[in-house]
Amino acid sequence: MLNSPTELSSTLLSALGQVLGTPDSLVALHEPEFAGNEWKYVKECLDTGWVSSVGKFVDEFERMLAEFNDVKHAVAVVNGTAAQHIALLAAGVRPGDEVIVPAFSFVATANAVSHCGAVPHFVDSSFDTLGMDPQALADHLSNMSERSAGGLRNSSTGRRISAIVPMHTFGHPMDLAGLLDVAGRFGLPVVEDAAEALGSTYQGRHAGTFGLLGILSFNGNKTITTGGGGAILTNDPELARHAKQLTTTAKRAHRWEFFHDEVAYNYRLPNINAALGCAQLERLPDFLKRKRHLAQKYRDVFQKTPGMSFIEEPRDCRSNYWLNAIRLDTPDRAALEELLRATNDAGYQCRPTWTLLNKLPMYSGCPRADLPVANVLEESLINVPSSAKLGAPQS
Amino acid sequence: MLNSPTELSSTLLSALGQVLGTPDSLVALHEPEFAGNEWKYVKECLDTGWVSSVGKFVDEFERMLAEFNDVKHAVAVVNGTAAQHIALLAAGVRPGDEVIVPAFSFVATANAVSHCGAVPHFVDSSFDTLGMDPQALADHLSNMSERSAGGLRNSSTGRRISAIVPMHTFGHPMDLAGLLDVAGRFGLPVVEDAAEALGSTYQGRHAGTFGLLGILSFNGNKTITTGGGGAILTNDPELARHAKQLTTTAKRAHRWEFFHDEVAYNYRLPNINAALGCAQLERLPDFLKRKRHLAQKYRDVFQKTPGMSFIEEPRDCRSNYWLNAIRLDTPDRAALEELLRATNDAGYQCRPTWTLLNKLPMYSGCPRADLPVANVLEESLINVPSSAKLGAPQS
Repeated sequence: MLNSPTELSSTLLSALGQVLGTPDSLVALHEPEFAGNEWKYVKECLDTGWVSSVGKFVDEFERMLAEFNDVKHAVAVVNGTAAQHIALLAAGVRPGDEVIVPAFSFVATANAVSHCGAVPHFVDSSFDTLGMDPQALADHLSNMSERSAGGLRNSSTGRRISAIVPMHTFGHPMDLAGLLDVAGRFGLPVVEDAAEALGSTYQGRHAGTFGLLGILSFNGNKTITTGGGGAILTNDPELARHAKQLTTTAKRAHRWEFFHDEVAYNYRLPNINAALGCAQLERLPDFLKRKRHLAQKYRDVFQKTPGMSFIEEPRDCRSNYWLNAIRLDTPDRAALEELLRATNDAGYQCRPTWTLLNKLPMYSGCPRADLPVANVLEESLINVPSSAKLGAPQS
Repeated sequence: MLNSPTELSSTLLSALGQVLGTPDSLVALHEPEFAGNEWKYVKECLDTGWVSSVGKFVDEFERMLAEFNDVKHAVAVVNGTAAQHIALLAAGVRPGDEVIVPAFSFVATANAVSHCGAVPHFVDSSFDTLGMDPQALADHLSNMSERSAGGLRNSSTGRRISAIVPMHTFGHPMDLAGLLDVAGRFGLPVVEDAAEALGSTYQGRHAGTFGLLGILSFNGNKTITTGGGGAILTNDPELARHAKQLTTTAKRAHRWEFFHDEVAYNYRLPNINAALGCAQLERLPDFLKRKRHLAQKYRDVFQKTPGMSFIEEPRDCRSNYWLNAIRLDTPDRAALEELLRATNDAGYQCRPTWTLLNKLPMYSGCPRADLPVANVLEESLINVPSSAKLGAPQS
């Protein structure tokens, strides 16, 4: 066999060594960096006592996020899952609906649908972008749905289909023009899961700002972190107002009165976490530059590496290269396991992609399209260390 | 009229002046204090890069919480609402169930029930404890429920009644012995909403540890704060394990694999917030001592104040006196509004209690008992400034 698991392992280890050097301690998959105003801003919260849900950093973080992403409104929340839950509710997803999501995604993409009382409906991905395949989606919708007075319906289940959730895998923007075209043809709102894509652009515009609403994540392993955090982005002032209301117990503004308008959530980002976010956002351009430099190093090395290739940003896109990824020429679960064992044992923290969502026990009965590409991706992708500090330009 | 709103206002202002002095700036209702190891622990998170969901402070905070409350397990989460949501799920609350909650509570008590897809069923409170009245509850359950193969059912709605949620108002423990007796007779699990009651005890045992599960809140206005945070308490190892699983996306532990067992949540408390919690818990005994001293001052002054009385801890209880409260002898909404205006204008941040939950638009159609006491409480209680620093013993 040309590329045995053992051969692939030694090839990958050699390539990682060329990019990352020999590890003296574990090279993390992605670790945060706090070298800016993080301590100053967090200390200001402690000194003033404003650590919780009221405080200037929440407003400032939302302002900075909107400005950076060139979008009218940003609502800061406790994490990406909460952001996606609220974005779906604000987009009109109701209990008993179906929501179109990629099978190839992190579990939160489907969980947020479940949290609305709705059912995820899984569709396939594209080799070009690792995101949802608009053409396959259009074919699938044509085959399985029908228009009714209440909107688009799944002909088999009878359930209303109420939104499409594209996801930008590892920070690489999916084919947004293609997707928006399909969504428009079928009359479905788009809620963009840009949890991984802060700083990525498609045709010069920021991921997360193409749908009716979009969301970001600032979990500890993301490009910037607030400890735990997320945000909802939208250009629609009424959706922004409603999203804010839904994340703050729907409390009516009043000097002392407690009156709440609807069933809502406590999803506010604490001020101390927002303080971290403000400092991290200031550093984002530098993080993106160094992550791009690291991706360039990986690309150069893997161009000369047999049996596997480096995942590059799609055409017309600029990726944040949140997580760099390698794809095996031949999908092979056994080889993947061997590569993960070898790299992690050698001190390079690598990981596989997610188990396809339709294969998880709680989602195995959900409706889905054929998933030929997603199945191949699951058995051939591996993420390699991607922290900004690994890409510091050499002097 | 003996106690006109104007007379009551000047009486209350005079009493507050005796306890708190003349404000030179706003005397907050409750503000946090960071004078211990808060900086040190938070800085350690930033210096090590461990700000997010993994890190030693989460484990340490859970250990300290369990130790302080003398309970076997504590699971730290993003806030009290999340804690209550998960505690209800772990206790077996299912979509379409009814859950018994006091009408006199913060909206989160009912929202957590809604988040399970269940329906809150409102019951009355007691003048003695401000918490649920066990005798009124027993009478109500006898009148409106029937036993069936699937458990207790509401005879009118046909829905299963699956839990009782007592709440400890302003930190004063409710009549737990009475409640556990009623719960036992009707075969209902108790999920204790101790969001306000960290440090309060009933017959020497900590509030939050009497039910199948209990919850705490560490919001910015609570006795200790983590920015935003909460915890689930239980003595049952399997419930603790399940609660942890439900708050951490149900991810199976594995070196690299992504496999999730059930629909779950991202409710983890970030490490940076847990760091704050560890430092705050170290200071809790001192906070409780000073808050108790402040309550003593209020009691002394209000014993000599006509038209109103100070709410004292119930018999057999030791309250944390989270929020001190005054009760008007005569319930009077107009007087209450005048008192709130006068005190807040004078620089004492005071607030009314919550709008009864059954009067909020989204809960107005829910089943409920008669609420004679709750209606009186709503029109006669006012919270007064309660920060620990206001109770520093005079030298």
